[in-house]
Amino acid sequence: MKESIGAKTIIYPTPVLVIGTYDKAGKPNVMTAAWAGICCSAPPCVGVSLRKATYSYGNIMERKAFTVNVPSENYAREADYFGIVSGRDVDKLSKAGLTPVRSEVVDAPYIKEFPLVLECRLLQAVEIGLHTQFIGEIMDVKAESDMLGEDDLPDIKKVKPIIFAPESRKYYGTGKLLGKAFSIGKEL
Amino acid sequence: MKESIGAKTIIYPTPVLVIGTYDKAGKPNVMTAAWAGICCSAPPCVGVSLRKATYSYGNIMERKAFTVNVPSENYAREADYFGIVSGRDVDKLSKAGLTPVRSEVVDAPYIKEFPLVLECRLLQAVEIGLHTQFIGEIMDVKAESDMLGEDDLPDIKKVKPIIFAPESRKYYGTGKLLGKAFSIGKEL
Repeated sequence: MKESIGAKTIIYPTPVLVIGTYDKAGKPNVMTAAWAGICCSAPPCVGVSLRKATYSYGNIMERKAFTVNVPSENYAREADYFGIVSGRDVDKLSKAGLTPVRSEVVDAPYIKEFPLVLECRLLQAVEIGLHTQFIGEIMDVKAESDMLGEDDLPDIKKVKPIIFAPESRKYYGTGKLLGKAFSIGKEL
Repeated sequence: MKESIGAKTIIYPTPVLVIGTYDKAGKPNVMTAAWAGICCSAPPCVGVSLRKATYSYGNIMERKAFTVNVPSENYAREADYFGIVSGRDVDKLSKAGLTPVRSEVVDAPYIKEFPLVLECRLLQAVEIGLHTQFIGEIMDVKAESDMLGEDDLPDIKKVKPIIFAPESRKYYGTGKLLGKAFSIGKEL
């Protein structure tokens, strides 16, 4: 039996992603975003929604670029911290002891210690309501060499991304392999 | 050391969601989408990207409504199947032995057997490239009563959503609790 729980922003899984930007002065900033997802295959694009009030919002509008950094489980504390404080007030990366690296592809920094990063140039800013969605064209993806699997693609079991449960506000890890996509359904 | 792996559409986690629509004749259709995510808190919105070639694309344009159904692990085969075949050719729900229920909130059907569903009215259609992103305002969320936790919110460990790993094309389950959001970062 289904119960109405109201118009809430709940889907599972929701990602935990850290957005990297430069401010006007060239100071690197990072903030955590969960309202995000891949939104196009060609050109390859990711959508990231931010509130106008965030420091990162102005940075993306200014620089027309951002990175999307995927934290691993062992950086859950840092990823949470990046969503709590504002880059206006503090240098979050210094405080967390993490290292910004200037992208050679777009005008934005990425986090050296995180396993996977998407380097994006701003394609569209979509006004929705409280949030503006930045659609970024993925210019390149970089992964730590030891996070790659046999197929030279990132191995999710090595990357160990974080899953966010909205409303109940909890983080989870990635679980067991369930099967191959575009394959297990053929048995139906 | 970071290695370039090219401009690929990889973020972790990527969701596995099943989109419910009615066609012109009122036949319910479902298709699986992974290019999706929450994109605004107020109004509460979810973005779902579909190719123009899909049957669901025309249905959403026509009906201005869709549902977002979250499958649990035990429906991984069905969810995969819904992404392989087209609703033009086959009645996917009948074939899978699942039950469409008419939403009382929007002009779209949801899947009775799935644990969680978002009922959405079309707010914007954003042209990106190969994919068009449908931004739907979440009018209500419905959850199976036995999927709710103590706080009357869906419990992700009961819902058991599916995680998609793009490019390597594999499905995974949800893992262990890592910590409380907006909390563990305060210790930093």
